[in-house]
Amino acid sequence: MSKNFAVIGVGGYIAPRHLRAIRDTGNRLVAAVDPKDSVGILDQYSYDVKFFTEIERFDRHLEKLRRGLEADRVHFVSICSPNYLHDSHCRLALRAGADAICEKPLVINPWNLDALEEIEAETNRRIHTILQLRVHPALIALRESLQKEGGMHDVELTYITSRGPWYQVSWKGHEDKSGGVATNIGIHFFDLLMWLFGTVGGVKVYHADDQRMSGFIELERARVRWYLSVEKDDLPASVKVAGKTTYRSITVDGREVEFSEGFTDLHTRVYEETLAGRGFGIKEARPSVELTHKIRSSLTSPRDELAHPFLKK
Amino acid sequence: MSKNFAVIGVGGYIAPRHLRAIRDTGNRLVAAVDPKDSVGILDQYSYDVKFFTEIERFDRHLEKLRRGLEADRVHFVSICSPNYLHDSHCRLALRAGADAICEKPLVINPWNLDALEEIEAETNRRIHTILQLRVHPALIALRESLQKEGGMHDVELTYITSRGPWYQVSWKGHEDKSGGVATNIGIHFFDLLMWLFGTVGGVKVYHADDQRMSGFIELERARVRWYLSVEKDDLPASVKVAGKTTYRSITVDGREVEFSEGFTDLHTRVYEETLAGRGFGIKEARPSVELTHKIRSSLTSPRDELAHPFLKK
Amino acid sequence: MSKNFAVIGVGGYIAPRHLRAIRDTGNRLVAAVDPKDSVGILDQYSYDVKFFTEIERFDRHLEKLRRGLEADRVHFVSICSPNYLHDSHCRLALRAGADAICEKPLVINPWNLDALEEIEAETNRRIHTILQLRVHPALIALRESLQKEGGMHDVELTYITSRGPWYQVSWKGHEDKSGGVATNIGIHFFDLLMWLFGTVGGVKVYHADDQRMSGFIELERARVRWYLSVEKDDLPASVKVAGKTTYRSITVDGREVEFSEGFTDLHTRVYEETLAGRGFGIKEARPSVELTHKIRSSLTSPRDELAHPFLKK
Amino acid sequence: MSKNFAVIGVGGYIAPRHLRAIRDTGNRLVAAVDPKDSVGILDQYSYDVKFFTEIERFDRHLEKLRRGLEADRVHFVSICSPNYLHDSHCRLALRAGADAICEKPLVINPWNLDALEEIEAETNRRIHTILQLRVHPALIALRESLQKEGGMHDVELTYITSRGPWYQVSWKGHEDKSGGVATNIGIHFFDLLMWLFGTVGGVKVYHADDQRMSGFIELERARVRWYLSVEKDDLPASVKVAGKTTYRSITVDGREVEFSEGFTDLHTRVYEETLAGRGFGIKEARPSVELTHKIRSSLTSPRDELAHPFLKK
Repeated sequence: MSKNFAVIGVGGYIAPRHLRAIRDTGNRLVAAVDPKDSVGILDQYSYDVKFFTEIERFDRHLEKLRRGLEADRVHFVSICSPNYLHDSHCRLALRAGADAICEKPLVINPWNLDALEEIEAETNRRIHTILQLRVHPALIALRESLQKEGGMHDVELTYITSRGPWYQVSWKGHEDKSGGVATNIGIHFFDLLMWLFGTVGGVKVYHADDQRMSGFIELERARVRWYLSVEKDDLPASVKVAGKTTYRSITVDGREVEFSEGFTDLHTRVYEETLAGRGFGIKEARPSVELTHKIRSSLTSPRDELAHPFLKK
Repeated sequence: MSKNFAVIGVGGYIAPRHLRAIRDTGNRLVAAVDPKDSVGILDQYSYDVKFFTEIERFDRHLEKLRRGLEADRVHFVSICSPNYLHDSHCRLALRAGADAICEKPLVINPWNLDALEEIEAETNRRIHTILQLRVHPALIALRESLQKEGGMHDVELTYITSRGPWYQVSWKGHEDKSGGVATNIGIHFFDLLMWLFGTVGGVKVYHADDQRMSGFIELERARVRWYLSVEKDDLPASVKVAGKTTYRSITVDGREVEFSEGFTDLHTRVYEETLAGRGFGIKEARPSVELTHKIRSSLTSPRDELAHPFLKK
Repeated sequence: MSKNFAVIGVGGYIAPRHLRAIRDTGNRLVAAVDPKDSVGILDQYSYDVKFFTEIERFDRHLEKLRRGLEADRVHFVSICSPNYLHDSHCRLALRAGADAICEKPLVINPWNLDALEEIEAETNRRIHTILQLRVHPALIALRESLQKEGGMHDVELTYITSRGPWYQVSWKGHEDKSGGVATNIGIHFFDLLMWLFGTVGGVKVYHADDQRMSGFIELERARVRWYLSVEKDDLPASVKVAGKTTYRSITVDGREVEFSEGFTDLHTRVYEETLAGRGFGIKEARPSVELTHKIRSSLTSPRDELAHPFLKK
Repeated sequence: MSKNFAVIGVGGYIAPRHLRAIRDTGNRLVAAVDPKDSVGILDQYSYDVKFFTEIERFDRHLEKLRRGLEADRVHFVSICSPNYLHDSHCRLALRAGADAICEKPLVINPWNLDALEEIEAETNRRIHTILQLRVHPALIALRESLQKEGGMHDVELTYITSRGPWYQVSWKGHEDKSGGVATNIGIHFFDLLMWLFGTVGGVKVYHADDQRMSGFIELERARVRWYLSVEKDDLPASVKVAGKTTYRSITVDGREVEFSEGFTDLHTRVYEETLAGRGFGIKEARPSVELTHKIRSSLTSPRDELAHPFLKK
């Protein structure tokens, strides 16, 4: 049966993927909130969406629906707000009798997960998150092949995605709001790596500034050199020459992992899994939240032979 | 020579057309401001755009550029803010030594045009606006043919463009901020009609509410019945059945004016004209601002034989 | 034992009375929130108040305290936010395991009281409100004397409290946010009148605009002509001449009720009563919320002999 | 003749002193702006103050008055906004044909003074600032006596003014918005010291964090050890015991400078001087802006014999 959805942060960058996923899984969008009122995008999905610019009025509306007919209540709240508000908005969802489907990172700091687990228990509702690389066909295949193979691997993760000055002005540039570069642009990859290669042993951070971070992680089955950046000058020369603004590479034992295709509808795939009871919850979110928190709070080490090659430039 | 542009309201709905027009006319975007910080769209155009969330800091930056090298100063400020802020943002542009290119409606109330004319004189800078239907090839052709023909015409303007509940919650739903339906969605058409058929004689308003307005205008060479609405229930049944959400029709003496093609880059066309010294200024903006103000402040009349047929339903 | 308090809307006009009441009843202020950050007033009460500008972060903090030591949790949340947010903030308080002490009017619309009653039942927490005239010694005395006397009375309520143009610009000037003049400045008096003279029979409204409202109410034991205004031109000439900006008068059978003294610490008195389990809850708040809602939604009647004399000027 | 004043930032902490100064110097408040709408304080001064929550609408109003009758135009704009907006608001004032009277610090960074000087020249209007210690009778007497005396002095400046956690949450806690502790709470004292003892030679900073700064300044006629703090734990034990929350001490050659009296109406005194053409302008503001900028951008030195005694605790 079709479910009712509400979206928090509907005016932002990531909301369209959730709106599409709601529609493409055959569900209904019934309410939305965003402090910004420039949300004409809603008209592409439905003309029957109650819209609010204040979270309090949105909360009132959800409460009203909760106390009304079962057919009208909100079953899922999709959370697309800035990272540092995720846990508060998850609470709002659960208190309103809905499950939450929350963008990554579910929270910035691990202790907030404990609090969310308790709220889940109190309300008997669930919090789901978007770990979309885990549903990517090429990566699922890779994982299976790695599991057969076994053994220890050398991995290099490089992700450079250029952002203009607006990035640092926005909430994404404030560590207390986004978690910083490793969390905001890296958490998916860290989740992926642990999903592929097992739990974390040691962590080193060689470099950390507002625009880039780089370090080393020892996993059960891999040694990982990583480099994450939003600075376009960090792009390899060949990429710049080609006029590209993003460079993403994961190599395992020197071989490139090919997964540039198949990114278009991963949110929808995660929604399908979530609705089928196979989504990702607090338990799945925890390792990458803990790892990025550890990275964020690490002192930097002097560069050594484990450092990512981009650092040696 | 390439000009430097800054954009006010870069996070909003209409900004992408201005960003494209700036790029496609070979110019440079150097600064932008929006109270909302979700402006990743900038990265599609340039990684060298200073971004601000406060108008005061944007003003400081423009002042700094104004007092620096001629090559660095901002030559044009594109204004995409809510309607009621247009005149204040035009002043900001002119004081910073730039020309303004301002979205429609240039202002909500005619007396603000007088003030803007004085600022133009004081600063020796110009304010341009976007009257994009005047550069539409099919409409230019229509105008020429009407001029040859001469005579009096019967015109019917119907524009129904569905908007969900967010519209009334946003600034567009507040008459003091948008001017109301006739101004916000109608001003282009009123400008077009006067450009085609001459100046206004009498005005009648039959119906006015938050969602729709309808009336009659006597022009030099036409009698115009008009109906403007953002209410999807106003769509003709045939349009609804076809799954469309917008209905736009202008008939002249019963014949449909065909202009649904050729809408894609009208902003760029207006920019080209503006940069070539053939843009539209306060003088061109005035008639439609005066007419919509008159409509807004009119009492409604009982329906008579001059009323638009949709009102008789 | 000393209780922990948190305050919502600590930067606003009415907050100081709550801060004083918290202190003067021997309790502790531990957290506060306001979207405005100009809250140096906190330093007059405590240097150990966690402060937030976002309701979500405040909610996170209260949740954290709720799940910590009993001695640290927030026992009461004092709500000083704009009227239309009261019920949402009451919910926040109760969900955080605290009781709410909410400024008047508890809500704008009666149906929100039903929702709050259900939340009380679900959380086993209470919502209290500030009906401070009910603890005024002179008015308590009046009530007792009226109860002895019995009979029907003629009452005239006149309250003119001048407000400059800022009032209409602020949330207080928006009926959907404040409830309008009768609710925002009148609700205390309507509560008082029903407390003194019994439940409402008929209601008439003679005049209603943004600045003033006037009408007639039939109570069990009184016929009440009332006039409420924020317009300084409505002040009687004698009051203007004396340089005063407020005129407040309640007459019973032509005799002035004297209660201008003893207003200084009524909030503290209400807090004392509330802490002693004798506070005012949803039940006590309901009649005046219902009455002001009825007034707000009434059509105006032609003036007749029941109209307040100020209307006949 | 009475002058017309407008106030920017009328809802903030410092605005009441400006409102009083406007009234007590016999002038008229005609317009005000603040993003917060809790500005009932206006009613204590006038019921004829146009109020705005958006700087753009305020600007429009001032422009309208500028183009109207000379008797109606705004002659002075008093600026009580956060520090980092001061220069932008000064520009707004001058462009509107008014002089500015701006709270301290006039600007955060010295180069903004150059820009303001150019705007003064372009508009033929003046920017005034509040250096209120220079009009304090006891300090004027001290200055005269020091000038007679001559010679080199040893000065110790200690200012500890406790602030709760709200301070760091507010704009005052962000160095880019307030300039940090030395600028925000210290600039008056630095101005005073240079006014008393001449221009700056060397500068040392021993300690700098969000809550406190301490250093040494060599002036023409004094060696100054200074310690500035908003941390209540820094208060001397004797002050804490006495239940005080502020400790302010300036000693010259070991003797305490007594100036705790006479603080009540210094803003009014500065207004009087300003209106009489003897106010403080950019020239007077510059030395302390330059000094605090130098302090802000200094690296910290190891403590030596020139360090303030509080640092040795």
